[in-house]
Amino acid sequence: MLVRLRKGLAPDQIETVLALCRELGYAPRFLGAERQMLELEGAGRPSHRSLLEDLAGVVEVLATGDARELHQADPRTSATQVRAAEARFGAGAISLIAGPCAVEDEQALLHIARGVRARGATLLRGGAYKPRTSPYSFQGLGRPALEMLARVRAEVGIGVVTEVLDTRDVEAVAEVADMIQIGARSMASSPLLLEVGRTMKPVLLKRGFGATVRELLMAAEFLLSTGNDQVVLCERGVRSFDDCTRNLLDVGAVAFLARETHLPVIVDPSHSAGRSDLVRALARSGMAAGADGLIIEVHPRPEQTHSDGQQAISLCELGRIRRDIEALAALGEARLVIPADHATPTEPALPAGDAP
Amino acid sequence: MLVRLRKGLAPDQIETVLALCRELGYAPRFLGAERQMLELEGAGRPSHRSLLEDLAGVVEVLATGDARELHQADPRTSATQVRAAEARFGAGAISLIAGPCAVEDEQALLHIARGVRARGATLLRGGAYKPRTSPYSFQGLGRPALEMLARVRAEVGIGVVTEVLDTRDVEAVAEVADMIQIGARSMASSPLLLEVGRTMKPVLLKRGFGATVRELLMAAEFLLSTGNDQVVLCERGVRSFDDCTRNLLDVGAVAFLARETHLPVIVDPSHSAGRSDLVRALARSGMAAGADGLIIEVHPRPEQTHSDGQQAISLCELGRIRRDIEALAALGEARLVIPADHATPTEPALPAGDAP
Amino acid sequence: MLVRLRKGLAPDQIETVLALCRELGYAPRFLGAERQMLELEGAGRPSHRSLLEDLAGVVEVLATGDARELHQADPRTSATQVRAAEARFGAGAISLIAGPCAVEDEQALLHIARGVRARGATLLRGGAYKPRTSPYSFQGLGRPALEMLARVRAEVGIGVVTEVLDTRDVEAVAEVADMIQIGARSMASSPLLLEVGRTMKPVLLKRGFGATVRELLMAAEFLLSTGNDQVVLCERGVRSFDDCTRNLLDVGAVAFLARETHLPVIVDPSHSAGRSDLVRALARSGMAAGADGLIIEVHPRPEQTHSDGQQAISLCELGRIRRDIEALAALGEARLVIPADHATPTEPALPAGDAP
Amino acid sequence: MLVRLRKGLAPDQIETVLALCRELGYAPRFLGAERQMLELEGAGRPSHRSLLEDLAGVVEVLATGDARELHQADPRTSATQVRAAEARFGAGAISLIAGPCAVEDEQALLHIARGVRARGATLLRGGAYKPRTSPYSFQGLGRPALEMLARVRAEVGIGVVTEVLDTRDVEAVAEVADMIQIGARSMASSPLLLEVGRTMKPVLLKRGFGATVRELLMAAEFLLSTGNDQVVLCERGVRSFDDCTRNLLDVGAVAFLARETHLPVIVDPSHSAGRSDLVRALARSGMAAGADGLIIEVHPRPEQTHSDGQQAISLCELGRIRRDIEALAALGEARLVIPADHATPTEPALPAGDAP
Repeated sequence: MLVRLRKGLAPDQIETVLALCRELGYAPRFLGAERQMLELEGAGRPSHRSLLEDLAGVVEVLATGDARELHQADPRTSATQVRAAEARFGAGAISLIAGPCAVEDEQALLHIARGVRARGATLLRGGAYKPRTSPYSFQGLGRPALEMLARVRAEVGIGVVTEVLDTRDVEAVAEVADMIQIGARSMASSPLLLEVGRTMKPVLLKRGFGATVRELLMAAEFLLSTGNDQVVLCERGVRSFDDCTRNLLDVGAVAFLARETHLPVIVDPSHSAGRSDLVRALARSGMAAGADGLIIEVHPRPEQTHSDGQQAISLCELGRIRRDIEALAALGEARLVIPADHATPTEPALPAGDAP
Repeated sequence: MLVRLRKGLAPDQIETVLALCRELGYAPRFLGAERQMLELEGAGRPSHRSLLEDLAGVVEVLATGDARELHQADPRTSATQVRAAEARFGAGAISLIAGPCAVEDEQALLHIARGVRARGATLLRGGAYKPRTSPYSFQGLGRPALEMLARVRAEVGIGVVTEVLDTRDVEAVAEVADMIQIGARSMASSPLLLEVGRTMKPVLLKRGFGATVRELLMAAEFLLSTGNDQVVLCERGVRSFDDCTRNLLDVGAVAFLARETHLPVIVDPSHSAGRSDLVRALARSGMAAGADGLIIEVHPRPEQTHSDGQQAISLCELGRIRRDIEALAALGEARLVIPADHATPTEPALPAGDAP
Repeated sequence: MLVRLRKGLAPDQIETVLALCRELGYAPRFLGAERQMLELEGAGRPSHRSLLEDLAGVVEVLATGDARELHQADPRTSATQVRAAEARFGAGAISLIAGPCAVEDEQALLHIARGVRARGATLLRGGAYKPRTSPYSFQGLGRPALEMLARVRAEVGIGVVTEVLDTRDVEAVAEVADMIQIGARSMASSPLLLEVGRTMKPVLLKRGFGATVRELLMAAEFLLSTGNDQVVLCERGVRSFDDCTRNLLDVGAVAFLARETHLPVIVDPSHSAGRSDLVRALARSGMAAGADGLIIEVHPRPEQTHSDGQQAISLCELGRIRRDIEALAALGEARLVIPADHATPTEPALPAGDAP
Repeated sequence: MLVRLRKGLAPDQIETVLALCRELGYAPRFLGAERQMLELEGAGRPSHRSLLEDLAGVVEVLATGDARELHQADPRTSATQVRAAEARFGAGAISLIAGPCAVEDEQALLHIARGVRARGATLLRGGAYKPRTSPYSFQGLGRPALEMLARVRAEVGIGVVTEVLDTRDVEAVAEVADMIQIGARSMASSPLLLEVGRTMKPVLLKRGFGATVRELLMAAEFLLSTGNDQVVLCERGVRSFDDCTRNLLDVGAVAFLARETHLPVIVDPSHSAGRSDLVRALARSGMAAGADGLIIEVHPRPEQTHSDGQQAISLCELGRIRRDIEALAALGEARLVIPADHATPTEPALPAGDAP
């Protein structure tokens, strides 16, 4: 049984609740100021629940196991819509995030930001801090990349999503980002989840490639437990024994999450495909499973990027995916939220070499 | 290096080719009358290839590794269309297979056959021989079920797909079935693949839940090597560490196969979902990834079936999926092939209890 | 609820039991002469159990779910020992199976049979029918290979284990083999399991690379349901996302099976390692987890074999593994059963090129 | 191509090297002061290598791909031995780490520290910061737990291993711990790896449950790149589709690592088994595969612990495992390093309830 206490309860008030719990025969444990909860162990009686709920310092009593967790869809209330810059996710709104893997060159970033915005993207992705497997791979430019993102954002008027790996960088990232990404490798880092949640910024939470759907939801629960409900889940493929794609896109998880949680879910077709010629098919497939948006790697000259170049698509292919999304959305009751000044999907002139 | 010989070559003619190969410095091995091929080991010279191809008994010489395998898409020729009863799979044609898991009761089968046909299905699925995990589970009725399928087929005018598990049953199944299914558990059984291939009946080949895409293609290659090109591949989900769905539907494999092979690919959303409320989302997702059709478990009263009841959907839900397919097909250049007398998707009166 | 009937019960006697079941409110189903069981569906009462058990034709009544299955260890009885030629598996006895992947050349087979016997192997493995992924790979010599095995067995005095893939070949294989192997790819083939079980020959049942331990036990249950209790389980590695070994050897499954079933369990370190330099370490690891034996691929000149050459070890390395087994067995209360005339592990002269 | 620069090179000296690289036609990138390396892109010539190596500021030039990485075993040098308090891992030395999952109560910790030391453990494990899936589970006591560990260490004379999750806690943990653990969920966190590496304390690096062996080695490479070579790798089981154990212990990875890296490797049989009755078999199996030690969860009253109680074993069972290790070590050329004052494995009196 979990007892949620009022925020700002004084230590002696907490002690009063603890004393009553002990009298009722429980072994209570205070779960810390962060969560402001007591965990009670022992075989209690149903009547204790209302007794505890009558106390001034207690907000609610949750029976472990059957308690409604914060991520769960509740038939009485509507889906949560997450808002970041012009983007809207969930409750009928679909948004498109696009951009390069890593932020490397400001002119290129400016070009790509304009290009993806013209093709319907309301958020620019781009890594300042890159989670890499090898210490000998490019790890991102760090602070200078954050500054580039800030300038490009001001210049182009597009929101920015970027990843944070280290609790010590959260503040700096939160200053620049409209949405903070917690990557697949960091999904299970509770200190990072709590630190990012507390910024009250919208969060993009990617599923770990070895994580169950339940673990993804529990990572979301860490974020939600800080009082921040602006959480977008992201399915990006899981590890499997086959290698025809880089990761196995779990569309069943997308369908499951769309049904079981009130949080929006998006799909990353780039990291699941791992090759640019399958990105569009996976984008369509993820949307048809019920996703509220996509996050896609784009590069004007995919062969020149320093990381994950094989999976980046051209701006031209992004334009095709945007039209796919609009056609699929029209079949349901959803709509793609596009930048205010790009309502008509006209293909701008493409620089040479941009053919897919 | 593989040397494909003419069919019907006499033993002494084969011996002539073998002798030449040995003279050229190879260790040749005759791969059997079934495949009518020689495998040559040893470091040969490029010129040997044309030398061998000049021989009267030799059809072609394949360099192992880079030889075009029979399943591979060839830009010079079009996709293969598989035809079974009224169904057409591939080359722009989409078909719907539906029916109960196992054939148990003739009246119920008749009812369901009419119901699925009225909702656009051109093939009825139904197991006479069931591959089951436990010897204490219902294993299917066998021959009597085949006879029921034959009578219902004659009565309703719908084609029949049914599974065969044992090489000794292939002949009996081929007499009744318009399409023979090789199930996930039998995908790697080379004797069964060869025996089924030789019937020259259309084959539905399901991917094993632990099989790589390459292994699925090699199983297809066994079928194709018999000269039978009427092969439909089926993705039905693979094993994973997560259990929010029964099997993880590999839409990346669907997209990959649509690109790399000339054979049609369909999706089984029922066995991947494992729960009826996610079947429709996975059906849509599979179609959007590029599938040429679906195979779906339907039961008028899902709770009464003896096997896999949890994943069977109602006829009413099948009607919704049919409309999804038609909408998705309209976005591409494909079309759903429907029974001649059911062009208009009118929902017939449903029996009580058929609500999803 | 399952009702096990007496063997040889006449149809009208079965009908009497069925009628009573219906009167008690159940929907009974006869599971076939093979298993001589009824499955009862419906909400019954505990008293029905003894009522049914009182009937003359009923052997016992099993509550589905909590019924003791045939593979389960029973504290009241001892472990099953499987005996094939000189080999003994289980109940304190450890045996070693070794030999080439495929049977290809009689002289080589004779040489290897003598070599493995001299190093403690009591059974010779060798494939006449090979389950292969590609139709263009060597599929085994079939009948001629069976005949070679028979002659080598007579000559050397070593028992023979060989695999069967097709129900139609079971009789021919059973004539030659001292133990019939059901391979990983065929583990889930119920017709093959039943056909092999009925020969009453000892069976080596390999776990499918995508099969759960429960599924392996249910495959064993098919064999045991024929009345044949001479079943050895074999763990040979499962599919995973990593490729530092060919298959992931599941030593946890070995430990679990050693505890939960009365059947012996052996380990195949060759197919799990996939590379000869790791075979010995995996052999030791499997034995230490509680295995009752090993099956190992050996080739006097590993580089010359046509299939799976990379994982075959030399006779010399087999000698080292034999000494490892004896040392490990000495730590517990088990012993390696060796050929009667090779009690002393003297290393015979090795042919040139046999260094590991 | 990677160019390793001298440490402490001034910015203008780095600029000189960069300028030369540009003249030679490369696009050079400085990989940061941490690694003091340049990455060169472009098609160079073999002669450039020696040209660059002649520069005063350059230590060596590594051809990407074929460069020897820091973790790789080098036939010319011996295995690395890691030393932490009395423990020694690698190069023939085996050590045993044992203790509770989480640090909760000082008296209990004191009791258990004495108990595991008496049974041969040279390091006490115990979590102050627990990585947990749910925000509603016990997350560890944090700083107070570190203080308890410090006092128990002083009292009992046993070294301490404890986990760190957050870069901000590294300094505090390093003050108390003799060895710092990076857990499975944090294995891929490059900021944490670098921060922990820089403490120059011995590190216990656990493999992520969804991580490949290559990724584990690259995580080790992050640690080694800080100049800290006191790294012990730990295999603790990976995710799989089966649930007879909690995680699938990858003994093939242990055998592979023992061969391919100079770093010691230990096994965590507790987290792979997930149930106490299989821990001993997995401990033996891991040692037989070539491990240099074990880390085991022990609890005097396993049923009373707050986290992972099911897999904790009793002190008595730990005594049995210690004797297993000694017997297995005697077969090879390794030896268990035990506390100086506990050379004789006498079983001390056990508290009531300590039977396994």
